[in-house]
Amino acid sequence: MGFGRTGRAVASVMMERADVRLEWIVRRSARLDHRHASEVIGVDSDDPAVIHSAGDASAAALLDEFPVDAVIDFSSVSGIDYYGNAAAARGVSMVCAVSKFDRDVEPQFRDWGRCTRALWSPNITIGINFMLLAAKTLRAIAPCADVEVVEEHFKTKPEVSGTAVRMAEGLGLDPCEIKTVRAGGIIGTHELVFGFPFQVVRLRHESITREAFGNGAIFAAQHLHGKPNGFYRMEDLMAPYFARLPA
Amino acid sequence: MGFGRTGRAVASVMMERADVRLEWIVRRSARLDHRHASEVIGVDSDDPAVIHSAGDASAAALLDEFPVDAVIDFSSVSGIDYYGNAAAARGVSMVCAVSKFDRDVEPQFRDWGRCTRALWSPNITIGINFMLLAAKTLRAIAPCADVEVVEEHFKTKPEVSGTAVRMAEGLGLDPCEIKTVRAGGIIGTHELVFGFPFQVVRLRHESITREAFGNGAIFAAQHLHGKPNGFYRMEDLMAPYFARLPA
Amino acid sequence: MGFGRTGRAVASVMMERADVRLEWIVRRSARLDHRHASEVIGVDSDDPAVIHSAGDASAAALLDEFPVDAVIDFSSVSGIDYYGNAAAARGVSMVCAVSKFDRDVEPQFRDWGRCTRALWSPNITIGINFMLLAAKTLRAIAPCADVEVVEEHFKTKPEVSGTAVRMAEGLGLDPCEIKTVRAGGIIGTHELVFGFPFQVVRLRHESITREAFGNGAIFAAQHLHGKPNGFYRMEDLMAPYFARLPA
Amino acid sequence: MGFGRTGRAVASVMMERADVRLEWIVRRSARLDHRHASEVIGVDSDDPAVIHSAGDASAAALLDEFPVDAVIDFSSVSGIDYYGNAAAARGVSMVCAVSKFDRDVEPQFRDWGRCTRALWSPNITIGINFMLLAAKTLRAIAPCADVEVVEEHFKTKPEVSGTAVRMAEGLGLDPCEIKTVRAGGIIGTHELVFGFPFQVVRLRHESITREAFGNGAIFAAQHLHGKPNGFYRMEDLMAPYFARLPA
Repeated sequence: MGFGRTGRAVASVMMERADVRLEWIVRRSARLDHRHASEVIGVDSDDPAVIHSAGDASAAALLDEFPVDAVIDFSSVSGIDYYGNAAAARGVSMVCAVSKFDRDVEPQFRDWGRCTRALWSPNITIGINFMLLAAKTLRAIAPCADVEVVEEHFKTKPEVSGTAVRMAEGLGLDPCEIKTVRAGGIIGTHELVFGFPFQVVRLRHESITREAFGNGAIFAAQHLHGKPNGFYRMEDLMAPYFARLPA
Repeated sequence: MGFGRTGRAVASVMMERADVRLEWIVRRSARLDHRHASEVIGVDSDDPAVIHSAGDASAAALLDEFPVDAVIDFSSVSGIDYYGNAAAARGVSMVCAVSKFDRDVEPQFRDWGRCTRALWSPNITIGINFMLLAAKTLRAIAPCADVEVVEEHFKTKPEVSGTAVRMAEGLGLDPCEIKTVRAGGIIGTHELVFGFPFQVVRLRHESITREAFGNGAIFAAQHLHGKPNGFYRMEDLMAPYFARLPA
Repeated sequence: MGFGRTGRAVASVMMERADVRLEWIVRRSARLDHRHASEVIGVDSDDPAVIHSAGDASAAALLDEFPVDAVIDFSSVSGIDYYGNAAAARGVSMVCAVSKFDRDVEPQFRDWGRCTRALWSPNITIGINFMLLAAKTLRAIAPCADVEVVEEHFKTKPEVSGTAVRMAEGLGLDPCEIKTVRAGGIIGTHELVFGFPFQVVRLRHESITREAFGNGAIFAAQHLHGKPNGFYRMEDLMAPYFARLPA
Repeated sequence: MGFGRTGRAVASVMMERADVRLEWIVRRSARLDHRHASEVIGVDSDDPAVIHSAGDASAAALLDEFPVDAVIDFSSVSGIDYYGNAAAARGVSMVCAVSKFDRDVEPQFRDWGRCTRALWSPNITIGINFMLLAAKTLRAIAPCADVEVVEEHFKTKPEVSGTAVRMAEGLGLDPCEIKTVRAGGIIGTHELVFGFPFQVVRLRHESITREAFGNGAIFAAQHLHGKPNGFYRMEDLMAPYFARLPA
């Protein structure tokens, strides 16, 4: 769902990976109807990746005619209204990565979670979600260490990074204390500085391109597969790896 | 056990912390016999912290006359010969942070582990041990990510950092591939670079002073308390925090 | 000259900047002959930016029909054979950023430098060239400080970064001592670590995209303008800024 | 002048370096009168390094009896009142590194500068001063690049780093925009982030110990030697290295 800049990046990752298959794409505009995403983006791929528009085909019709294991959503606040009920009714996994909604959508996802696996995570990259869990763990180990959140983005990004805010909140810190650096074309970095009396631990995430969301979404879809119905966050899929440490 | 540069740093941390009490110190030389570590180091403390020498008093005698919960060892390869059996026989926890032995001491510790809690960890800081566990977790989450180990130390450090070698081995990497930077007076940094196709995660540890070992040793002694007998590594004490992620 | 991946990135920067005008492009293939780079790349621009092919039009003919102040070259080893003599004969500035040649081209550039301003610099970004000059300066200030070169690139880059090698050579270091990190999709970072006994200075350059070469090439072309004929390196254009420090 | 924590560190560096000789030290307290700094600090040194107290001996008397090339001052706001006139009258170089005064002392130094070489620099490390000059140079080269100042210090440091404020001011930035990280026992880092559209340049300084001030003060004293009388800043001694770039 969605074929904006991030949607395209995610689609290109899906088409390039051998272990997933991109069946179809739904976008708002009808301009590319029935074309193939591979040809529009310019990648080699055998995936069908047919582009539809929301006005042309209902989610129910698409899911019935071209069944999928999971719906991946990088659209906008209204995307879930299009596909939510249809996906839930068919037990199709939902991976929603829309970062901001204009209302509280969690009850809605919890509701869908009674019929399927409904995941919503505003930042769906593996690196950021790992970092948040690792930081929570270190905070439990060393509750007295001071923690600071520093994020860097391109000059024209007006607001504090939403990901940084969630990190701060997740660690019990005041989001107003986040240090924001705005300079040139920095894609995005997030650093957590753990200050101990005699040592420093830094957890740092650097974004290279938005394709990172693609691998995160695929990780989510693959890990939801076989899980019981319910409402999920990326953290819920990653936490078992923390519990089951390799020797 | 031990009152060299690291031993003194550890002793000073123990004397400054209110939740532990430094009963006595054993060192090889008799030069400071019966003086108080607080006065020798120059810190304010009510801890007894009496200095003994190994030739003057046996570990058994000291442990009987001045009982302790744990023995903390920053001495040398021969320290364990002095106190090992005596501590094990009395069920006193053992925290050994000697980084290199001239023989394989693990069987010895396993043996003591039948009577007490015997921990041996060559780098006992909280930060390094957390980092190793977090890195193992990320490697399980993302087995395809490339990992590089970079360590920086003062110019005159001749060999590759032992901590870096253990990190590489723990992650299934070739220790010969560690990148070593040697420049000026850098105390010590260890960085793990996780390279994903579209993002980078860095775990970085910076040492400020050797007092970091003190807080690590205290963490170990406190977490051994109440645990069943056995052989322990720092990782074993930290792993439960990974399993029991806070919400 | 050149319309490969870097050539396109450079062209797009030139078309987007108001203070330069991209007159035409020459590439080897005739596939895009007479199309406009703006339309091929998909940027808004009033620059002519007409694409020609080397087989279709000689450099002399192009330079006579569509005069320019400078020729910017991101093509290949053979590009200079196409335009070198023609540009020199007409006193057109030459900015060549081809990183590797199969022969020693410096004498050739020196020769052209008798008739025009002929610049050749294998890495033409502002950041890298600044960093090299700043590092040389610090080395003169503190000849005893230890210096290490660390470079990071994507996993599949096989050889040591040419930029890092030139940095090492420029600083009198052994290029074999460069530390290379290869992981995931890292675009490229270069770090110089200056280790003093009691402090560390790091100069670090991080590439975001290859468009950085565009701004570097424009800087070169603009700074060559009005300079005497001769052979130039980026360093020669930047050094005056070091001499003329603002208060 | 001065034998507090920084004064001692500076004295120890002076005694360990073969190319300078520490003649004497003046401090406020008389507690260590006539003892040798080498023995008080515990370093091996043949330097006289005799400790005097300001109440016991006037600067004029000391300078006459034990002549020196330069006076190095890490004392307090009142130190210059003790030695300033006496040093100036004898043409002895003055290196004052007191970071804050309760009044504007620059006119005073300019006055002394008519009789001797009078230097005052609040942060006298080589690294910080190099960084400031390098940053000014890069700003002249790339006036459109965005610059951010980030500084990190120990948790209990209440105010913004004075060094960071001077960096911001020197670069024409608003000191209120400095990003301050306060965590654990971080000694001190200063980073200047230059954000370009497609690349990032970072200049980073990390303090290891306060001994760094010692090497900076010696650099200053040695570079003042032979210079004309006048008022100097560290920048004035370093700028010539920028002008005279090695090939």
